Amino acid sequence: MDTDTDTEQNSREVYLDHASANPVLPEALQAMAPFYHSLFGNPLSLHSWGSTAREAIEEARTKTAALIGAPSQGLLFTSSGSEANNLAIKGIAFARQNQGKHIVISAIEHFSVLQSCKRLERWGFETTLVPVDRYGIVHTEELVKALRPDTILVSVMHANNEIGSIQPIGELSSLVKGHSNAVFHTDAVATAGIIPVNVAELGVDALSLAAQRFYGPKGAGALWLRRGVTLVPQIDGGVQEGGRRAGTEDVPAIVGMGVAAEAAMVQLNEHLAHLIPLRDRLLEGIPGAIEDVVVTGHPTQRLPDNVSFCMQFVEGEAILLHLDAHGVAASSGSSCTSRALKASHVLLATGHSHEVAQGSLLFTLGKENSMEDVEYVIRTLAPIVSRLRRMSPLYTKYLKGRAATA
Amino acid sequence: MDTDTDTEQNSREVYLDHASANPVLPEALQAMAPFYHSLFGNPLSLHSWGSTAREAIEEARTKTAALIGAPSQGLLFTSSGSEANNLAIKGIAFARQNQGKHIVISAIEHFSVLQSCKRLERWGFETTLVPVDRYGIVHTEELVKALRPDTILVSVMHANNEIGSIQPIGELSSLVKGHSNAVFHTDAVATAGIIPVNVAELGVDALSLAAQRFYGPKGAGALWLRRGVTLVPQIDGGVQEGGRRAGTEDVPAIVGMGVAAEAAMVQLNEHLAHLIPLRDRLLEGIPGAIEDVVVTGHPTQRLPDNVSFCMQFVEGEAILLHLDAHGVAASSGSSCTSRALKASHVLLATGHSHEVAQGSLLFTLGKENSMEDVEYVIRTLAPIVSRLRRMSPLYTKYLKGRAATA
Repeated sequence: MDTDTDTEQNSREVYLDHASANPVLPEALQAMAPFYHSLFGNPLSLHSWGSTAREAIEEARTKTAALIGAPSQGLLFTSSGSEANNLAIKGIAFARQNQGKHIVISAIEHFSVLQSCKRLERWGFETTLVPVDRYGIVHTEELVKALRPDTILVSVMHANNEIGSIQPIGELSSLVKGHSNAVFHTDAVATAGIIPVNVAELGVDALSLAAQRFYGPKGAGALWLRRGVTLVPQIDGGVQEGGRRAGTEDVPAIVGMGVAAEAAMVQLNEHLAHLIPLRDRLLEGIPGAIEDVVVTGHPTQRLPDNVSFCMQFVEGEAILLHLDAHGVAASSGSSCTSRALKASHVLLATGHSHEVAQGSLLFTLGKENSMEDVEYVIRTLAPIVSRLRRMSPLYTKYLKGRAATA
Repeated sequence: MDTDTDTEQNSREVYLDHASANPVLPEALQAMAPFYHSLFGNPLSLHSWGSTAREAIEEARTKTAALIGAPSQGLLFTSSGSEANNLAIKGIAFARQNQGKHIVISAIEHFSVLQSCKRLERWGFETTLVPVDRYGIVHTEELVKALRPDTILVSVMHANNEIGSIQPIGELSSLVKGHSNAVFHTDAVATAGIIPVNVAELGVDALSLAAQRFYGPKGAGALWLRRGVTLVPQIDGGVQEGGRRAGTEDVPAIVGMGVAAEAAMVQLNEHLAHLIPLRDRLLEGIPGAIEDVVVTGHPTQRLPDNVSFCMQFVEGEAILLHLDAHGVAASSGSSCTSRALKASHVLLATGHSHEVAQGSLLFTLGKENSMEDVEYVIRTLAPIVSRLRRMSPLYTKYLKGRAATA
């Protein structure tokens, strides 16, 4: 039954793109405010304006490190998760190049990791991509097979931002440690503040995170490094962040990150209890309402806020525009590549065809979403997909084929 | 007459460290606010939250580019002036390395330029430092002499952040263009928003600026590139900023930069008229009240907000601590190096001895400063310097020597 009339248009605003952006927590904003106008000093200044800013940064460092179960000394602030990933990959690779120039990453890493490795190839580094299974989980035997005596760095993301699959990082890192001297980095941008993240349990040497993922401000990310892990800075100049990242610190954003990290830690279980039923209703309700839907990612080892599909015979971007007209914000994958309109490397690596990957649709849930939102989306999506399929030659062909074989 | 009693302590708060940090303009803060909580979308998202953020960034780009008289297409946002300088130096050098690996910069560049060149030397690049005169102005003949057939990049800062000297960039860039194929970059972090900056008049191919210098937020900087100037990105990954700088844009900070840029442009003359008399009073009043003071920087070609000295026989840091106790915030040079407690490379390059450079003291004025502030500082500084000198063995020796030759 197609009821895609204009009557329901904009009847509701449902934001389901929390992996791309989030509003900043009111308590974080409140903490940030004075650092814009009254406590505006430069943390390096040798006067009381400076020391106030310096103390605020160190407090935020302690809070942010606590979110990942780490001591604060190893944590340095960056301007984004992408910057943290670039600094980890290139910075560690350049620092260790005398010991080897081989890097191992999973085939489904975020573009900031993938492209950093690509960039390093210009300087003679080599990258091995470890394949993943259909659920997006790294093949452990393939990971071990990829390790070489000259492997200096392994990077596997904690969870995938597009399909939500959570890697068994503890297992992977201990395998890597057992078979090589590589530094193990994990991109935890998709997980820090969302599920429990603990550097000791994960057994990692370096970990990237981003404030905006847990309702902190956009301009703050962080890279944690285990003591002894050195890196070549990417931004040279001043002595900020222990000489590892020059440039005046974005004090308000860093303060906001600290407050958001603390809140995320306190509210983690409550947040999980809120998100999981919404996620599960979408994961079950959408394939229930629409035929020929492929659920992507792992059925159980997945982020509590991640709902990802491929809608066969339609383009993900077309669905997004129709959803937007109905007040629903979603994504077709990584926001860093969503305007490139290419098939996701994550979906291809999990064994989906180019055709299927074109219909990629990603919903990421957040605090303010309700079961009513979710039901509205299920109700709204089905007629949109039907209508788009009616215009799809591929779908017509498929129906004919199905009728013939029936 | 020494009247350094506690009665005047903290009687006034005078912030004279505007080169290190500034409060954010109220109108900029107001414009930023909605982008933290209601208009929080990711500019790359294909829905209305995304397009709102995208439009806001493009508006800020137009306003920021207007401040430097440039078309908006060539302007890309970074997280700081230091990042912009790193991206300019390393990015352009790597992009042009097939044409040569020689870079020419002045001896008094900011550490983000100097250290970027230093870093490039690891990859076989060579840097020539062009000397400056005692006022900090680049020797034009030396600049021309430094150019070689393999010179791919020249970078000379528009004005020096420590001593305030303004370079004749238009003259320098046309000399460079006449004698080489080098790309000409200028670090305008100290000037953009403070004095007129126009990329056409300056004749430059690339220019760095920072929002915090003109009362914008700390987390926003920008690099402008003339059409045709390519660079290798430093942060790889997403397609943001035309693929030249990955990572989710810090939308609120960028919006704040745009508003602050517009305000700086509108208020430029008013601001100059306010600052110059304050600057000139300090430049004349401090050497009038205190003996053995060396004014550093150019007597006339200097920033309207810059007042820099060397106080002989005392340590700049000691003066700062005493000034702080009297409510006065100042600096001993670049905030990026102020905690390193080394003699400034700028003062050494302008011919000052290590001893004299130790007494470096930098006041940078701002909107809210008044003539009363300035008189208070002059009145406060003299007894502090006297007291410190009384404890200085060097000063005692100097006095004896002076008495003997008198």
